[in-house]
Amino acid sequence: MFDFPVEQNGVTQEKLLTLIKNTIKFSVKTGHRYFVNQLFSGLDPYGLAGQWLTDALNASVYTYEVAPIFTLMESAVITEMCRMIGPEWNDGIFCPGGSMANGIAIHLARFNYNKSIKKTGMFQHSRLMLFTSEEAHYSTQKFASFIGIGEDNVILIETDEVGRMLPNRLEEGIQEQLDFGGVPILVVATLGTTVRGAFDPLNEIAEICVKYRLWLHVDAAWGGGIIFSQRHRSKLNGIERANSAVINPHKLLAVPQQCSILLVKDKNILHACHSKGAEYLFQKDKYYDQSYDPGDKYLQCGRKCDVFKFWLMWKAKGSSGFAKHVDALMDAAEYFEEQVLARPEFRLVSKRQYINVCFWYLPRYLRGKKDVLEHSIQLHKVAAQIKGAMVKHGAIMLGYQPLKQFPNFFRFVAQNSALGRKDVDFILDHIADLGRAIYK
Amino acid sequence: MFDFPVEQNGVTQEKLLTLIKNTIKFSVKTGHRYFVNQLFSGLDPYGLAGQWLTDALNASVYTYEVAPIFTLMESAVITEMCRMIGPEWNDGIFCPGGSMANGIAIHLARFNYNKSIKKTGMFQHSRLMLFTSEEAHYSTQKFASFIGIGEDNVILIETDEVGRMLPNRLEEGIQEQLDFGGVPILVVATLGTTVRGAFDPLNEIAEICVKYRLWLHVDAAWGGGIIFSQRHRSKLNGIERANSAVINPHKLLAVPQQCSILLVKDKNILHACHSKGAEYLFQKDKYYDQSYDPGDKYLQCGRKCDVFKFWLMWKAKGSSGFAKHVDALMDAAEYFEEQVLARPEFRLVSKRQYINVCFWYLPRYLRGKKDVLEHSIQLHKVAAQIKGAMVKHGAIMLGYQPLKQFPNFFRFVAQNSALGRKDVDFILDHIADLGRAIYK
Repeated sequence: MFDFPVEQNGVTQEKLLTLIKNTIKFSVKTGHRYFVNQLFSGLDPYGLAGQWLTDALNASVYTYEVAPIFTLMESAVITEMCRMIGPEWNDGIFCPGGSMANGIAIHLARFNYNKSIKKTGMFQHSRLMLFTSEEAHYSTQKFASFIGIGEDNVILIETDEVGRMLPNRLEEGIQEQLDFGGVPILVVATLGTTVRGAFDPLNEIAEICVKYRLWLHVDAAWGGGIIFSQRHRSKLNGIERANSAVINPHKLLAVPQQCSILLVKDKNILHACHSKGAEYLFQKDKYYDQSYDPGDKYLQCGRKCDVFKFWLMWKAKGSSGFAKHVDALMDAAEYFEEQVLARPEFRLVSKRQYINVCFWYLPRYLRGKKDVLEHSIQLHKVAAQIKGAMVKHGAIMLGYQPLKQFPNFFRFVAQNSALGRKDVDFILDHIADLGRAIYK
Repeated sequence: MFDFPVEQNGVTQEKLLTLIKNTIKFSVKTGHRYFVNQLFSGLDPYGLAGQWLTDALNASVYTYEVAPIFTLMESAVITEMCRMIGPEWNDGIFCPGGSMANGIAIHLARFNYNKSIKKTGMFQHSRLMLFTSEEAHYSTQKFASFIGIGEDNVILIETDEVGRMLPNRLEEGIQEQLDFGGVPILVVATLGTTVRGAFDPLNEIAEICVKYRLWLHVDAAWGGGIIFSQRHRSKLNGIERANSAVINPHKLLAVPQQCSILLVKDKNILHACHSKGAEYLFQKDKYYDQSYDPGDKYLQCGRKCDVFKFWLMWKAKGSSGFAKHVDALMDAAEYFEEQVLARPEFRLVSKRQYINVCFWYLPRYLRGKKDVLEHSIQLHKVAAQIKGAMVKHGAIMLGYQPLKQFPNFFRFVAQNSALGRKDVDFILDHIADLGRAIYK
């Protein structure tokens, strides 16, 4: 169906055009409002225009010299986002995704704990420990491995009935590790967990971090965009008490892939932790003030410009435009939850806290049963079967997963503010139709 | 001159258009053939078209489900590049830049040495040691810090008069560390060093790696593109003996930013080393064969599609198109070196081995002197001064740096095959003009 192999000679222009058309034809239309499968979707016209211009200018954002506008623009956007978080926030970097941003936060926490590791490594050190919730994103574990701490040294703290980290369990976990000779250095709290959209209780967690002198990193990759909304901003309360935070504008704010920002309080730590001073790039005798070069604050050397598309959207719509976008999404999610509660063929997994609505489709024989979890084995198969039929049909794409004691359930999420009530109805009707066809 | 701050309300469309025009006006034109400042330049029309379509489709390449064409296309391109390196090469990943790719290679080497570190970390382990040349890219040290090995545990091996790692020094270095209780695990050899474009003697280094059972990673980020050229391919001889290699098509092959590929021999190691099995994304009961999902081989979760622009260029021009491109660049570099040798106002730093031509501009009082290094203090200031004047003038952008015992010198590099002999003449004439104006 598609001619992938590359060859010695180029193909004709006609053939090339056919290949391009087929690339479009066979690709998932992530810009469509019925693509509600991931924590990104939509395609903002300003964002796309910004991305296209970025591509045409083909910059690498390590020095002011080769990217004068983009280095200053990064600085302006980071300054403004720091201001929105709190008065003590001072610096930030753009990262190739939220996982990488979380990994760098671990690095900063380790550097904060012991600066000498940068030079001498972790050999002969006591066991460093990280803490996050059992519903947090897997990147903390993945990067704990990468950074040499090891995934076993990430303690996953129990969550409550809606997915929030339990602060008393966190303190118990820290105490337990201290008793065993571990050295806690970092808590990763989440604002907007991947599956249930839970917001960890930041103020209580921050108290514990102060008490035990731990770096507090906030993974607000998914939840952070809410910072623009007057109505919902309070969900982020306490973020100003953290040491670092990641916000991915390419998630909630529908900035084109990829735009992920790690913000920090300490204005010197990114440079101190990452700098290497390579003289072929960061010459000490430049014809301008070297402090305009952001490159040595980064782990990456060459780096794509991710700021312009975000800045252009922001400039075009203003903060108020992002606020409207966020509020519209929250309204859609609220209506989605209401409809799930109102329809007998659906069952809510747990109370909605954000955009995420988690629900089961119930075949007829499970409807009206009080505790559907008694039928977990049968229920587990339902979402996977419906998803298969859904993708073959091709109208919508919606994700599912198991979580803790819960068998497979669907997760509705949206980042495309074109999605309205009629679309919510269509999505639920469609799932019900697919379900009815399978479970006659 | 430019209105950076973002505000509560959006600006008018007219104002937005002015901002966009100013972004273009004040940005460096990296596509111009006189932008010879970095290891990337040019703007291939197929590449740009590919990038623009990628943006419009706004995919994240973690699962076949959401990126069916791009996951298969990555696989096709990686398979072909592996085939070009050698019969035992089997897998690869796309990385956000060569630094990250080198960092992941360190991770693979550590995993190869001891799989348990993934789970338990590096505490109480013996001191692991990495080896690379003193002219290698700084990313090995930067990521040695990140990964917990520490930059002091990267031993920088002496280079010869043109910048190649000295194999006998490498073996001495390994022996010395073994005597001190260090545990060598990895040698990073470079094909195409950043400043002088040197190619480390791979076959001799590979022998040493076999002898001491070390992982051999080849940083061919800059040199690797030469693999397409029949005339110059032999410079890569020995790469097939390595365990991993990085090639950045966004460098020599002028693919738009960013396209960096890490290739490995062992077909299981990327998955074994990186996988975490997050069930919300890599469900075990998918409606298709899970092995089509590349995401768990990666450290990143969400990931921009970097393959399509490269694949489209390859499809359009064929391998032979890339070969012509590489050969044209090598011809331009050869002519550049000839001209530097022919003109009394210039002096070659060391013999050219690749695209890089390293040279000094000599003020009149230094011309004809046998050993200009006796005048290092004066000579050091020349390149920085000319560069400042060059940027203010605005016609060309060319880099400079110090290296080892050499005071600041210019480095010519090119990736834009539109650059011909007349352009070489123009660049050298222009530097001479600027030099004459400063050193009357």
